[in-house]
Amino acid sequence: MTAAAEKRPIYLDCDTGIDDSLALAYLLASPDVELVGVGTVSGNTSAAQAARNSLALLELAGRSDVPVAVGAHDPLRGRFDGGVPHIHGHNGIGGVEVPEASRRPEEGTAAELLLRLSREYEGALEVVAVGPQTNLARALALDPALAGRVAAVTAMGGAALAPGNVTAVAEANIWNDPEAAQIVIEAGWKVTLVPLDITLENTLDEGDRARLLASPVPLARALGQMLDHYFEFYLPLYGVRSCPLHDPMAAAVAARGVVPTRAPAVAVEVDTTDGPGRGQTIADLRGQRRGALDQEGATVRVVLEIDRPLGPHLVDLLV
Amino acid sequence: MTAAAEKRPIYLDCDTGIDDSLALAYLLASPDVELVGVGTVSGNTSAAQAARNSLALLELAGRSDVPVAVGAHDPLRGRFDGGVPHIHGHNGIGGVEVPEASRRPEEGTAAELLLRLSREYEGALEVVAVGPQTNLARALALDPALAGRVAAVTAMGGAALAPGNVTAVAEANIWNDPEAAQIVIEAGWKVTLVPLDITLENTLDEGDRARLLASPVPLARALGQMLDHYFEFYLPLYGVRSCPLHDPMAAAVAARGVVPTRAPAVAVEVDTTDGPGRGQTIADLRGQRRGALDQEGATVRVVLEIDRPLGPHLVDLLV
Repeated sequence: MTAAAEKRPIYLDCDTGIDDSLALAYLLASPDVELVGVGTVSGNTSAAQAARNSLALLELAGRSDVPVAVGAHDPLRGRFDGGVPHIHGHNGIGGVEVPEASRRPEEGTAAELLLRLSREYEGALEVVAVGPQTNLARALALDPALAGRVAAVTAMGGAALAPGNVTAVAEANIWNDPEAAQIVIEAGWKVTLVPLDITLENTLDEGDRARLLASPVPLARALGQMLDHYFEFYLPLYGVRSCPLHDPMAAAVAARGVVPTRAPAVAVEVDTTDGPGRGQTIADLRGQRRGALDQEGATVRVVLEIDRPLGPHLVDLLV
Repeated sequence: MTAAAEKRPIYLDCDTGIDDSLALAYLLASPDVELVGVGTVSGNTSAAQAARNSLALLELAGRSDVPVAVGAHDPLRGRFDGGVPHIHGHNGIGGVEVPEASRRPEEGTAAELLLRLSREYEGALEVVAVGPQTNLARALALDPALAGRVAAVTAMGGAALAPGNVTAVAEANIWNDPEAAQIVIEAGWKVTLVPLDITLENTLDEGDRARLLASPVPLARALGQMLDHYFEFYLPLYGVRSCPLHDPMAAAVAARGVVPTRAPAVAVEVDTTDGPGRGQTIADLRGQRRGALDQEGATVRVVLEIDRPLGPHLVDLLV
């Protein structure tokens, strides 16, 4: 058997991004999964820049075999807002200069790559989506049968009971394309949503960063350098130089490096109005007071607790 | 000095209601406040039935001096939905038969009573609103200067980080008239919002009910009887016969029987769209991780923690 047959195949959809880079590195290092493709989308940075970053990081990791496709520049409705250089740096990876990759992205779009992989690994492919979900929505529009060929979708996005991070209730990935997120949520495939409730409670700190910087692994060292910028942004939130683990949490849940211990399957709906709740991921968590109760017919799990802190495990895996 | 001059004067706006009855009793028993008027609104039951209940309970307490006015039957938009007899009983007070009052409600509306009292007690009157906020919105529409004459508004309503109790995100009082709640919130007066986050965490149980039933105080005994019905509804939520203290929490915060220990002043907006978030009270609790931080210019405080459990104190006061 080939490695890809033994390991669960994963397509990563991302807006690389510092924490996207951590997620990418996590999936590359994870023993039980095989990264078989990367699609990019505008979010933290543009889809094109996210592809340049992804290609460069893959080459740094010696994994130039993983195809990378540029996906949607704009959300389904409206225009890409230019990203968040104050969080992820001018180039999306904290201003760190990683050597440009020697290869170019795939010819087709990210949606097309996802569709191709879903046929190649029919019934086995898992999707890890850590950016706005535009590519997934576009792929579903191109071929609604996609949902039936994908084994699972794990998406970083939303805020269940925690406050949002763009508005009082909206998390960035969903905020950047609420219409796409709603399409993904109601597609009927098995979605595991990894919201701010859990990602903000798992962090890296200067000790973790020092370990990454001291690693013999080039990608780990590059990640350690990126975190300098990221830590600075999060200093006011945490009071110490550190960062939440948004995207790597979705990667770790998908790769089963951490195991959700409280993740009820509940009705989830994205607010696609133009009201004050736009972009909110409304998860129906009523009735969860006496333990995690799955709602009948619900296809979306919301991860609220995991079995161990992600930070130390993440660094152990990467260095 | 008269009692009313010594004590802080309170207008109670309610949809009586079992927990409204607890709030009414709390205010009557509270040493530092003087209940100077009651207005009713449709919610738990109709505004007319809520007035009958309020009159009957006041007479039972020997307080037929407190004026009661019938307020809005319908919300600002749409129609009264008929109430929640499965929670509060067919008559709003758990099916308990309290002798009908010998007097009738005031001639004018609840909004008119509130306006009159705001002039009589100008600068001192405090409003405790434990039902849909239709009467307050109507009074503000009749006389926008009302906001400047009222010292404080304490309202039971909303769900800040906790799930809602009508929809995944909407609490009943706000759900029943979101448009009114938004008017009240943006009126510029000092509003203290008492959401499900705190009311669901403070309960009465069978021990408390037994103490009420054994009291020499007729009103306390009637409340103990009402709780039988109320406990039954909440059994699935808590797993034991008990009930949350929604409305009495607002009364206790207003009367200072409990003191908020975490109640940041933050931007609050009610979702008045027809989307999935309709009726949600969106409180901006970002940035509260490192302690309660007041947002500049915010006129609404959201009570998230109090200094002691309300239940035992409530029963002590009533029996």
